[in-house]
Amino acid sequence: MGKEKITMVCANKAPENMDFLPDVQKIKEEFKTADHDIYIVLDSGDKFITKFHETNADLWPQKEKIINIDHHPSNQNFGGLNIVNSKAASTTLVLFHLFNRIGIEIDHQMATCLLTGIYTDTGSFMHSNSSPEAMRVAGELLKKGANLRLISKRVFRNTPLSTMMLWGKVFSRIKKNSQGVVISAVTKRDYKECSATREELSGVVDYLKYIPGTKYATLLTEENGHVKSSLRTTRDDVDVAKIAQKLGGGGHVKAAGFSVKGRLEEEVRWKVIPKKENQVE
Amino acid sequence: MGKEKITMVCANKAPENMDFLPDVQKIKEEFKTADHDIYIVLDSGDKFITKFHETNADLWPQKEKIINIDHHPSNQNFGGLNIVNSKAASTTLVLFHLFNRIGIEIDHQMATCLLTGIYTDTGSFMHSNSSPEAMRVAGELLKKGANLRLISKRVFRNTPLSTMMLWGKVFSRIKKNSQGVVISAVTKRDYKECSATREELSGVVDYLKYIPGTKYATLLTEENGHVKSSLRTTRDDVDVAKIAQKLGGGGHVKAAGFSVKGRLEEEVRWKVIPKKENQVE
Repeated sequence: MGKEKITMVCANKAPENMDFLPDVQKIKEEFKTADHDIYIVLDSGDKFITKFHETNADLWPQKEKIINIDHHPSNQNFGGLNIVNSKAASTTLVLFHLFNRIGIEIDHQMATCLLTGIYTDTGSFMHSNSSPEAMRVAGELLKKGANLRLISKRVFRNTPLSTMMLWGKVFSRIKKNSQGVVISAVTKRDYKECSATREELSGVVDYLKYIPGTKYATLLTEENGHVKSSLRTTRDDVDVAKIAQKLGGGGHVKAAGFSVKGRLEEEVRWKVIPKKENQVE
Repeated sequence: MGKEKITMVCANKAPENMDFLPDVQKIKEEFKTADHDIYIVLDSGDKFITKFHETNADLWPQKEKIINIDHHPSNQNFGGLNIVNSKAASTTLVLFHLFNRIGIEIDHQMATCLLTGIYTDTGSFMHSNSSPEAMRVAGELLKKGANLRLISKRVFRNTPLSTMMLWGKVFSRIKKNSQGVVISAVTKRDYKECSATREELSGVVDYLKYIPGTKYATLLTEENGHVKSSLRTTRDDVDVAKIAQKLGGGGHVKAAGFSVKGRLEEEVRWKVIPKKENQVE
């Protein structure tokens, strides 16, 4: 196997905050199926996840040429060889054990790549998939020279000004009602004022759901003549899918959404305070 | 040693987000020196850190009665017995090894407490003190039943609405000039509008310094007729202490501040755009 013939491909361009990963600039966005003998598919539960399911339709029937390495419980075992461990916190943990097993030495650059996978998939060890095993391997990768400073700086502390300003608008106008429903909203004008895009809102609604005393959180956003709503909850007794369904949407128990035609307009609510019986005028 | 005679003390009330720690409500805020024979001081580099240096002045000369357990390199070894490991990421790591050494069994509640110390002192394994050792012990504590879900929820995902709104105001009005100086400001009116206090700004300036392309970050706050400024940088070629000194303040190379009499007022700046020579009127 000549190194020259290996092609790294990903249908999406790597996000900017991942440009510190060794050799990331060598990743191509497309490939010809006929140019290769073996295809290693990583971190993809099904072929459509790769986004090459249509562009490289000739690849998938050649099952025996596919090595499928993953950690998603939903993995469809679409390869001739399927190395899938649904208990692993990240696919890079599966790779770590595979490398050890077949005797591939992990250098400091590989260690940085593998550790980045663990950090991102466990939310820097805050998600419930942060197993003792993930911790142990992270420690080993640090010993092998993984650059933690770079990972934590680039992956977790790298928010562009536009995103921070847009999130600031979301946070500064949060309303929480007496039932514990947290609402915030973003208008088209906000994107313009912050020089931001809709994509930069990704993840912000999760912060809203964590506000103490929140039943569920809703983020309203303007988009192509529609108002889109994202619903999130951390509570086990709340089903946001049901709420979204009533408004023509859908989703999961803890994360759902709906969309209605229209635009956002801030409304100042007036509350009637009834006069107490023995109150002096 | 009768359990009845053990008193847990801390000069400050435990912060609300730590109220999940087992027995935290048993911690007292004061004690009489004469009531005890042995004093175990944790996580304190010097006696003034405990804030009991004056209220319990009679304690400190009785050096032989003090067991000093810590991980700060600056520790003054003020005890008769000093168990100080400046390489440990947290004092709870020192305790973990001590418990193992002297045969104290770590149950799931103790594991939660010890793991909380590791998480907070390493910033959930994002600070540079996140050693392989800290990772390994964290894994062991998880195996012993430490409640990671509770720690990550209460310690890291527990921002009150008032804090989130106040941070939102800071983020939404960030300005970055052409030299990469990031500035934001908080007025007395902001605290009122968010039902927040000055203390809730703690940590926000650190987010500003991480904005890509930032030379240094400045947060201006109104306080008792003064405008206080906090300066932060991540760059090795910038000394914010020097900048603060010019304005009558001081501090460290990467974190400094100054204070001037006055109040904040937003200024809309007008920029003169010179007419190009061949431009049509």
